[in-house]
Amino acid sequence: MSCIILPVLFDLSVVPPAAERLRHLLGEDDSTPTPTLFTEMDTLQQEGGELEWKLHFFFFSSSSFSPCRWVKFEEKVEEGGERWSKPHVSTLTLHSLFELRTCLQTGSILLDLEGYSLPQIQVTDGCISPDLKEKIIFVLLRRHRHQTKKPIHRSLADIGKSSNPTSSKSVNKFMKKIPRDAEASNVLIGEVDFLDKPFVSFVRLAEATTLGGLTEVPVPTRFLFILLGPPGKTKSYNEIGRAIATLMVDDLFSDVAYKARDRNDLIAGVDEFLDEVIVLPPGEWDPKIRIEPPKKVPSAEMRFLSQMNGSASGAGGDDEDLPAPHELGEELKFTGRIGGGLWLDIKRKIPWYCSDIYDGFHIQSISAVLFIYLGCITNAITFGGLLGDATDNYQGVMESFLGTALAGTVFCLFGGQPLIILSSTGPILIFEKLLYEFSKYDISKIDYMELRLWIGLHSCLQCFVLVLTDASYIIKYMTRFTEEGFSSLISFIFISDAIKKMVTFNYYPINRGFKPDYVTAYKCECLPPDQECVQCGGSLVGSACKYVPDLALMSFILFFGTYSMTVSLKKFKSSHYFPTKLRKLISDFAIFMSIMSFVGLDMLMGLDTPKLIVPTEFKPTRPDRGWLVMPFGKNPWWWYLATFVPALLVTILIFMDQQISAVIVNRKENKLKKSCGYHLDLFWVGVLMAACSFMGLPWYVAATVISIAHIESLKMESECSAPGEQPQFLGVREQRLTGTLVFVLTGLSVFLAPVLKYIPMPVLYGVFLYMGVASLNGIQFWDRIKLYLMPAKHQPDFSFLRHVPLRRVHLFTLVQIVCLAVLWILKSTFLAIIFPVMILGLMVVRKLLDLMFSQHDLAWLDDILPDKEQKKKEDEKKKKTKKEKKTAEPESDEEVRTI
Amino acid sequence: MSCIILPVLFDLSVVPPAAERLRHLLGEDDSTPTPTLFTEMDTLQQEGGELEWKLHFFFFSSSSFSPCRWVKFEEKVEEGGERWSKPHVSTLTLHSLFELRTCLQTGSILLDLEGYSLPQIQVTDGCISPDLKEKIIFVLLRRHRHQTKKPIHRSLADIGKSSNPTSSKSVNKFMKKIPRDAEASNVLIGEVDFLDKPFVSFVRLAEATTLGGLTEVPVPTRFLFILLGPPGKTKSYNEIGRAIATLMVDDLFSDVAYKARDRNDLIAGVDEFLDEVIVLPPGEWDPKIRIEPPKKVPSAEMRFLSQMNGSASGAGGDDEDLPAPHELGEELKFTGRIGGGLWLDIKRKIPWYCSDIYDGFHIQSISAVLFIYLGCITNAITFGGLLGDATDNYQGVMESFLGTALAGTVFCLFGGQPLIILSSTGPILIFEKLLYEFSKYDISKIDYMELRLWIGLHSCLQCFVLVLTDASYIIKYMTRFTEEGFSSLISFIFISDAIKKMVTFNYYPINRGFKPDYVTAYKCECLPPDQECVQCGGSLVGSACKYVPDLALMSFILFFGTYSMTVSLKKFKSSHYFPTKLRKLISDFAIFMSIMSFVGLDMLMGLDTPKLIVPTEFKPTRPDRGWLVMPFGKNPWWWYLATFVPALLVTILIFMDQQISAVIVNRKENKLKKSCGYHLDLFWVGVLMAACSFMGLPWYVAATVISIAHIESLKMESECSAPGEQPQFLGVREQRLTGTLVFVLTGLSVFLAPVLKYIPMPVLYGVFLYMGVASLNGIQFWDRIKLYLMPAKHQPDFSFLRHVPLRRVHLFTLVQIVCLAVLWILKSTFLAIIFPVMILGLMVVRKLLDLMFSQHDLAWLDDILPDKEQKKKEDEKKKKTKKEKKTAEPESDEEVRTI
Repeated sequence: MSCIILPVLFDLSVVPPAAERLRHLLGEDDSTPTPTLFTEMDTLQQEGGELEWKLHFFFFSSSSFSPCRWVKFEEKVEEGGERWSKPHVSTLTLHSLFELRTCLQTGSILLDLEGYSLPQIQVTDGCISPDLKEKIIFVLLRRHRHQTKKPIHRSLADIGKSSNPTSSKSVNKFMKKIPRDAEASNVLIGEVDFLDKPFVSFVRLAEATTLGGLTEVPVPTRFLFILLGPPGKTKSYNEIGRAIATLMVDDLFSDVAYKARDRNDLIAGVDEFLDEVIVLPPGEWDPKIRIEPPKKVPSAEMRFLSQMNGSASGAGGDDEDLPAPHELGEELKFTGRIGGGLWLDIKRKIPWYCSDIYDGFHIQSISAVLFIYLGCITNAITFGGLLGDATDNYQGVMESFLGTALAGTVFCLFGGQPLIILSSTGPILIFEKLLYEFSKYDISKIDYMELRLWIGLHSCLQCFVLVLTDASYIIKYMTRFTEEGFSSLISFIFISDAIKKMVTFNYYPINRGFKPDYVTAYKCECLPPDQECVQCGGSLVGSACKYVPDLALMSFILFFGTYSMTVSLKKFKSSHYFPTKLRKLISDFAIFMSIMSFVGLDMLMGLDTPKLIVPTEFKPTRPDRGWLVMPFGKNPWWWYLATFVPALLVTILIFMDQQISAVIVNRKENKLKKSCGYHLDLFWVGVLMAACSFMGLPWYVAATVISIAHIESLKMESECSAPGEQPQFLGVREQRLTGTLVFVLTGLSVFLAPVLKYIPMPVLYGVFLYMGVASLNGIQFWDRIKLYLMPAKHQPDFSFLRHVPLRRVHLFTLVQIVCLAVLWILKSTFLAIIFPVMILGLMVVRKLLDLMFSQHDLAWLDDILPDKEQKKKEDEKKKKTKKEKKTAEPESDEEVRTI
Repeated sequence: MSCIILPVLFDLSVVPPAAERLRHLLGEDDSTPTPTLFTEMDTLQQEGGELEWKLHFFFFSSSSFSPCRWVKFEEKVEEGGERWSKPHVSTLTLHSLFELRTCLQTGSILLDLEGYSLPQIQVTDGCISPDLKEKIIFVLLRRHRHQTKKPIHRSLADIGKSSNPTSSKSVNKFMKKIPRDAEASNVLIGEVDFLDKPFVSFVRLAEATTLGGLTEVPVPTRFLFILLGPPGKTKSYNEIGRAIATLMVDDLFSDVAYKARDRNDLIAGVDEFLDEVIVLPPGEWDPKIRIEPPKKVPSAEMRFLSQMNGSASGAGGDDEDLPAPHELGEELKFTGRIGGGLWLDIKRKIPWYCSDIYDGFHIQSISAVLFIYLGCITNAITFGGLLGDATDNYQGVMESFLGTALAGTVFCLFGGQPLIILSSTGPILIFEKLLYEFSKYDISKIDYMELRLWIGLHSCLQCFVLVLTDASYIIKYMTRFTEEGFSSLISFIFISDAIKKMVTFNYYPINRGFKPDYVTAYKCECLPPDQECVQCGGSLVGSACKYVPDLALMSFILFFGTYSMTVSLKKFKSSHYFPTKLRKLISDFAIFMSIMSFVGLDMLMGLDTPKLIVPTEFKPTRPDRGWLVMPFGKNPWWWYLATFVPALLVTILIFMDQQISAVIVNRKENKLKKSCGYHLDLFWVGVLMAACSFMGLPWYVAATVISIAHIESLKMESECSAPGEQPQFLGVREQRLTGTLVFVLTGLSVFLAPVLKYIPMPVLYGVFLYMGVASLNGIQFWDRIKLYLMPAKHQPDFSFLRHVPLRRVHLFTLVQIVCLAVLWILKSTFLAIIFPVMILGLMVVRKLLDLMFSQHDLAWLDDILPDKEQKKKEDEKKKKTKKEKKTAEPESDEEVRTI
């Protein structure tokens, strides 16, 4: 047989010598990290009778030191296009890799050469005739033509004249993207007629040196790979060049190249690379297709470790591990000390306080403030109006504005999680309504404001008790099931409210019976007396009386237009038009731009659409109440104690609403870095409860949807767009400035009335619709609902689908849907008041799911409940120790060999 | 050095022995094509204390025989998910391939065994103890568990009981997708404790045999690969199994497997495979990512040929060939005989005539007929109205309907390209207008209808002359530049017309000054006399007179809604929801569904929006004209000759309009199979010209946008969705039925008036807008315009961008934009009448572009003009012969070896 397989190199069972060598080499000394390598490949071309080097490929190495990760992909000079290709994954032939290995085995390997210019560098070793050597040097010094805006012709000969010869804009722009410590490796490939056998040289310089025009950008060169050969095999040479270039930017191999002591180290590096390559069958992939860089590449450390352990990271193998267990962090640990949690919260937040202010200075904050401000005042007006109706204006729009401003500002300045936005919520509204009705219709004629004050005080105290006993830790038992159920429900309520408000424009009905031919019959008259007749008791008679032309449809256009435009502009970020920065700006200001556009359209049309009207004077809505409520005097004394019972309901309501919203905001997916403070949050909500009760203002608690919108509008993505790099979600701009500004502006809205009156309400409802829909994004529950409509083969490759049978997934989703439907129905009745308590019901349902589903399925679809989790961890630990024991024993593995 | 490279196997320069062997093997006998192979891999698992085989992977081979191509990708059983993964490209490790090679080198290779059940088959060769052999057979006979709806437990032992044991629905459904001649290869991988060395056996049966429950679906088994080994290396065994399974479905290797004479043939096949694999660097790709099957895979023939020629098809290499030259086909060849082209057209079309009828029976035709019918009658009404205005109702809506029906039916029944839709067009309208004004205001008082008749007759004769002289062949000189310019312009006109009609709803202005508080002041009265006052000369006085409430906005909603809904529903095809068939249906009926929805909305609102009103009585619009025009008597005799001159203009107009539309319809991208007939088309247009003139009906010519819409609505895509298969565009349902039906329906519209009157005009304008926008799709010019807005790195990977510098591309686009702008401006003046002549101008501009751009650039951006093309071809031929000569000479290639 002519072909000899590499049984030693390619066997898993015994640790190969290559790996041993590498382990020794790389394990030696890890104190100095190797610099980022930038590789380019030039080929020798005949241009107008003269030889010259032409840039062919670019390769980038990845660097973990620069703020934006460099992705190590290939960019090719398009032959005719005179431009760079998109970065793509390099596809090599096995052949070229083996040829490269031969080259390294037999060519000259010159390590740690001295020299500051190409002629000085001894690129050849001894065994070559001086005549040939001269010719090779001559070829190497031919001028290099590079791919900048205009092709720059430079000769290697003018080295030393200037170490930074080009300062054209494009080069500068490019340089910005290259980390400072970067070094270059140059691959020079060419055909020459004076050689009859290929000449190969791999050079590592002792010091990285700027060899003039060798590299496109002024990066000092550290490595040189030269392959010159007799003519006729350009393609083969090019492939070898691509192979070494790909290797040079490989994390592991570049490490090897920097540290190699001799030829064998390099070859061991190639062998390691070969051992790890991924092979695509020729019939299943067309090599002409350029593979887009993946979102995530395997880290070199993992490969290094697997190399060390002598196990190949099998291609095509699946990650069969369980998902990372759900962790709520130490914020929710039960301290066992009185007020221990609160104390830890304060200690945790104080170091961030300064950065909480200056992190807010960013253009994105402006858009966030405008967006959330408009959401807040719309909410304040809506709830203010409803509260006014419910309490005979004891609490009206003015109180709503003042309360929102006060509570919001205090919370954003001192709360544990300043990204949370406080607002009036539905359950509180219903509670106030029932309370007012009780006090009004009761025979004893209880004073509403005083009664409410005492409830507030009791509730505040109860909150303090919850804070001091670290009670918030029970939130730990809230898994994804409960959390997503709650936030979906709130989102649905938001969406349905926005639509309901639009659909029931019954004060502007559409005039369906109108016929243009009967225009004279279309009028609305006031029958006697004639002048100012309605005020004087006259009645309107005529077909035109109940209609206002065009308003209903215009409102619809404003509503739907604002929503659609916002969605489109948000999506624009992922389009291919315009530079990335501009697209990001458009996406950040999507809501603002939509609002402005449709306010403009509304002004242009000049129709009398319902507008946002804020109060313009600073006084209580009801003239017979002041700004302060006295605690004593109007109700019998025993009420001061009896209010403990309704206060308990309010406390549960506030506790659940507040803490669930906090959990949603603090989700791991949001990558918050400044930690949170559940106990501190609850403490301030309690304080504000008492303060608002004293001033006769509404009560406030975290608003889920607006808080999510706040987070969404502050999301950061990696800005620098290295070739092939995908923008990465970095986290949220965590600070106290936007929230504070929003509420200060809310307070000042009294003075902003002349501007705000141009904003039509349908536009704001459109914004609400957007908020509701946007907050559904990224919720696994929502993804799973969509699965019902997809045939199995079209379903996305969710990790839980790989591990849990589809019918179990569907069953789990169904349980969730039923739960939400029940909650939705309850919410529409008077039971809405115990709505947050029903969230506790969700947690009970989740507990029962343990009986229906295996822990394995639940780990993928939901999180495992804490006690089970602990147990699981322990099990894992046990297993691990067992395994370690096992690996410590000498393994009796054998080679795959047939009987 | 411990590692030995395979210099013989992996060198390009000398033809390797593996390739020689394969050349011999595969070149031998190509008469019997090898069947499609279906591969599955089962692994041995311990389930409840018992050993059983569990299905792991599925592999499909590609077959060129089945109507829907099988794509040869991997489907994996998701461990926990109990379902099939999406098909994906198999990623292998190099290691497993080498291990497989070792296995084949040392294991038992048993070719052409006899046997009809597993126990009968001698899976082992001689050198194994009978004791071990028995144990191996025992393991092989363990029951197999497969992945159907419910896991089916079957034992291999009940072979023979029934050769087709499962007939569950899912299996049947699956079977449909497997070609009849398919054969299976089974890969069985397992760990057993009685072996201390791996046992490998590769079996090829003499006849494909159904081995009971071995395969999931009842496909006869031809190949068996068995790998049993001592425990502890599951992963390694599995990888080897995946490697052989991937090889078995490789086109080339499966050929080798069928034809192999001995072990060495198989190993040569593996070597060929190894030589062609594509290697991804480990640091640039995560093997956990499943690669989606590509749209196009390289064909096995190409690989086979490259193998034969001894040159590796290098990975990452680019196709530097020029694009396929533009070919208009033989239809436009200049025959040199009088009427030769017409005769060829008829000869070409007659064989298709029957299929032209029965190919029309398809559900898609219904949607196409409804869509195009609505387009046609809207067009007929619009142009009818405009013609009526222009000619004082000599030609009105009734004539327009009748003419459309007559001309369209005749053309669709007898024309060369029945997919073309005839319609009135803008230039003809302008000509008629000028002609009528001339006849009306001239002192000589010429009779318009008689004058028009003579122009029609002359034009008809001129058309005949053009037909008989094969003049249509000059269309050959129309390159993509002209064609796309023309069709873009027509699309823009369509879009701007649709929007213009909507924006200038000046008969329904929006009532901007309305204030709900002054509703009593809002009225419209007729000042004296009171009753029926307007008819009696009274005038309307009041603020309400000029307004019709809600209509303008409702019209806008209908217009924009119809357009948006159509676009969304069309896009729905590429979503992931619902089964493919349903999505296709929704997409096909998108326009119909949108129209119905918005007609419904309009009826629901009950507003008096402008509706589609068709004439209900069959009589000429103007009472003083009949259905026939007499040629003599009204005008002086010399007019009969003088009309030759204006007729010439009409002929050029018709010729250009007709033939350019035909070229656009006959585009290669549309994959028309039934050929076309430019001369035949023109012949019938001439005949209809004369007929319409005699009956006093408008003249008709091909309408570009509606014809494109017709084609779009008849596009076919491959229906069967094999795993991983991308739907392929197959061509257009070419037939005469839809066109004929559309025009018959147009003729019958007089009776359909009661139904049609519910359709609001804004809905139809929305359809027009959609038609215009849709006809811009797939136009390269349009793609290039978009490039202006994209930063280079975000631009799509168009092939012309790989070969032409971006600034040249932009320059080319700019020239085109300027040309269109000039045409647009000219079109808006009275010069519109010579509009089609200006297309000739475009062709001249294109000729001048030869001076600005290199032929290389033009070949990529446009087509090369015929004479140049010929020259180029000849050049290429010369090159080829040279090359062939060169390859015939013995090459002096040498191995890459260093000095």
